[in-house]
Amino acid sequence: MKTLFLMSLLLIGLGLPVASEEKVADYQATADRIVEASRATETGWDRLSTLCTLYPHRLSGTRGLEEAIDWIVGEMKKDGFDRVTTEEVTVPHWERGAESLVVLKEKPETLAVLALGGSVSTGPDGVEAEILVVDSYQDLEAKKDQAKGKIVVFDVPFTTYGETVGYRITGASRAADAGAVAALLRSVTPHSLATPHTGVMLYDADSKKIPFGAITPEAAQHFHRLQQAGQATRVKLILETRSYPDKISRNIIAEIRGSQFPEEVVVLGGHIDGWDIGEGAQDDGGGSLMCWEALRTLSQLGLKPRRTVRVVLWTNEENGLQGAKTYRRLHDLEIKNHVLAIESDYGTFHPTGFAFTGQEPAVAMLQEIVSLLDSSVGEMKVRTPGGGADIGPLMAEGVPGAALTHNSKKYFWYHHSPADTLDKIEPKDFTDCVATLAVTVFVVADLPQRLPFGKPGD
Amino acid sequence: MKTLFLMSLLLIGLGLPVASEEKVADYQATADRIVEASRATETGWDRLSTLCTLYPHRLSGTRGLEEAIDWIVGEMKKDGFDRVTTEEVTVPHWERGAESLVVLKEKPETLAVLALGGSVSTGPDGVEAEILVVDSYQDLEAKKDQAKGKIVVFDVPFTTYGETVGYRITGASRAADAGAVAALLRSVTPHSLATPHTGVMLYDADSKKIPFGAITPEAAQHFHRLQQAGQATRVKLILETRSYPDKISRNIIAEIRGSQFPEEVVVLGGHIDGWDIGEGAQDDGGGSLMCWEALRTLSQLGLKPRRTVRVVLWTNEENGLQGAKTYRRLHDLEIKNHVLAIESDYGTFHPTGFAFTGQEPAVAMLQEIVSLLDSSVGEMKVRTPGGGADIGPLMAEGVPGAALTHNSKKYFWYHHSPADTLDKIEPKDFTDCVATLAVTVFVVADLPQRLPFGKPGD
Repeated sequence: MKTLFLMSLLLIGLGLPVASEEKVADYQATADRIVEASRATETGWDRLSTLCTLYPHRLSGTRGLEEAIDWIVGEMKKDGFDRVTTEEVTVPHWERGAESLVVLKEKPETLAVLALGGSVSTGPDGVEAEILVVDSYQDLEAKKDQAKGKIVVFDVPFTTYGETVGYRITGASRAADAGAVAALLRSVTPHSLATPHTGVMLYDADSKKIPFGAITPEAAQHFHRLQQAGQATRVKLILETRSYPDKISRNIIAEIRGSQFPEEVVVLGGHIDGWDIGEGAQDDGGGSLMCWEALRTLSQLGLKPRRTVRVVLWTNEENGLQGAKTYRRLHDLEIKNHVLAIESDYGTFHPTGFAFTGQEPAVAMLQEIVSLLDSSVGEMKVRTPGGGADIGPLMAEGVPGAALTHNSKKYFWYHHSPADTLDKIEPKDFTDCVATLAVTVFVVADLPQRLPFGKPGD
Repeated sequence: MKTLFLMSLLLIGLGLPVASEEKVADYQATADRIVEASRATETGWDRLSTLCTLYPHRLSGTRGLEEAIDWIVGEMKKDGFDRVTTEEVTVPHWERGAESLVVLKEKPETLAVLALGGSVSTGPDGVEAEILVVDSYQDLEAKKDQAKGKIVVFDVPFTTYGETVGYRITGASRAADAGAVAALLRSVTPHSLATPHTGVMLYDADSKKIPFGAITPEAAQHFHRLQQAGQATRVKLILETRSYPDKISRNIIAEIRGSQFPEEVVVLGGHIDGWDIGEGAQDDGGGSLMCWEALRTLSQLGLKPRRTVRVVLWTNEENGLQGAKTYRRLHDLEIKNHVLAIESDYGTFHPTGFAFTGQEPAVAMLQEIVSLLDSSVGEMKVRTPGGGADIGPLMAEGVPGAALTHNSKKYFWYHHSPADTLDKIEPKDFTDCVATLAVTVFVVADLPQRLPFGKPGD
């Protein structure tokens, strides 16, 4: 050891490069080794399958979520990480009960319906009323006189998630303001095979709280055409939901400690909570498990970066974001030492790079790093800006933040629906995501120069 | 009129071509006119929309089917056809009642399920049992010892419809033979978003009749993975079905009578019955209405072919084929005068030609005719062999038969499911199908030379 140390001093004196002055290009062989290792194992995939099979329903406040967390923590402890721990988070606890939508006619017809997260209950007797279909808030305003006592159906076609989801968030209050007794939403998705999608909704403080559920796009369009044909439709809607007192859930944390700057942290993670339908495979079982598997890959290879690499599996992303807020609070003094925060919450498709927000030199550095994957996984691009819900509180403080991006537009086909299941994920895509994350976080954590802190323009 | 007649005689005497000796190429201008006319109207599309909106459920024996038929006949009578009539057909009458599938666990979970057509009832109390998942009949044979008293789940991946549908037809009897109390089928589809698909099933005479339902591919795979993980799954299945005495339904017939050979008939049609879920848009509302609209287009243009063009909308294709069998019987003496029978029952996508069975010269003739559409609708190919369920009885007697083909592989995404709805059809595809059918039947019906009768090699 002493000899090596003396040799380093000597080399520094000669102005020659030393082991501690790698450039990004010097990591090509290591990157290739990481990619190869991530492809040589089925551990990550098998764990994803187990999560989807045995712990499919992971809604905040439920036993399902805590059982999933227990299992993950137990498995992580077998992986030889330097630290595996959890941090307590107070989360909301809302659950769906019996739910049904029956069209009342000579032969009653039962349609698929899902209560939206946070909706008040109709009670066991349900709500029976005629429906009024609108295709926008403007249309609701125009038909306001007809809404009183009705169940308003929002048949709003999908444009982008960001645009259309507004009706899911605020639709109940807008319908209530018009006098409706309940509301139904055309599920927020660009492609449906009679698929209902749930998701969180919120009530305005000043509006009456009415039950709010999601129906299939097909049903919404059918109701709409019936209305255009002058036919009244009467339905009976049951959404037996219940809100309980807050519960304690946990963020999961696993680390490889940095060899040189252990206090500097590269964070990567997804959210371990999910909805109470489907298997939460794309949202966000795959995203969570690929981060964990990326850390395990580095650990298995004995790669010990200069900085700490930390996986965080946040809880309660779906209906409260308390995991992210609590992490931000508990790590307050560490914020300036967060070198990079990566969130993986856009599914598990073939990776294409990152959507990133950081200073200009950081963008260039990250682009150089992900290009190490071009020859093995495929061309990688760093696009700007980017971010995510769980890393939002860190990014607000100046931590550079990145979302793993994919080449698929299918994410919202599955999102929050009973079709978010393991069969929708290609094992090779999962592996490529693992490799992309592992290479990126390793190089960011190991390079002599730190990724510049701060927001663009700081 | 007399002058024209004399001129014809004169031309015949001179050996010059006369109006009565057109070749296929002479129809290009007429074909273009037909295509243009089919694109210039929304009548057909509006009628398809009305069918899907007001008459979505058209299962044999139900009032829904007969109301659809009444509406069609009423509309057809406004179209100025030479004949609009119906022919009575005795059809089976089976209906689904309440149905549910609940996974029995700490928090019971309700999954989508559809009784398969013809299934016996579980009764209102349902069947409660553990499930046994198999992926093939071989696998069922291997697990025979475990099947007694269980609900057998066939998790058979989709290969082709023809291959996989066998499990839907005979699965219940095979499961009953192994001692199962009920059976569930992974829905027969290559793509699912938690979508169940129904369809007809049959019981072997020697086997016990047990209830048989379809679940989503996602649920079947989830059950399968749970079993592989060593976890037992107990479910409660309710399929309240009921079989009633046969009823009278109707085939619908509309015609433009031939000007020269009225006894010779070119038949085109689809089936007007459908399942009791979704809207029966692709199967076979679109196929039926495009045939009707093709006839209306010829009629509107005042095109009077030499032979009769007849639209037949068969009843009871889905669960009995009694419409086709009755048509064959009632038109027994006409069989040799059936020049061509076209069936449109593969959905409503962009047309690509026909799958045809007939003598070699007939194949060549049909190819020449459909090529009239190359410049307007797109390249058309006549592939061999081809046919369809409703024209099967005619083809068995030597009538040349053709199925309209499409360039989409999505048909079985929607088929027999609640996702078979109007929004899955592009209006332009519908129009192009109308044009393709109208041009083809007009030229076949009008050419001086008749399409050769008989099977290939006759």
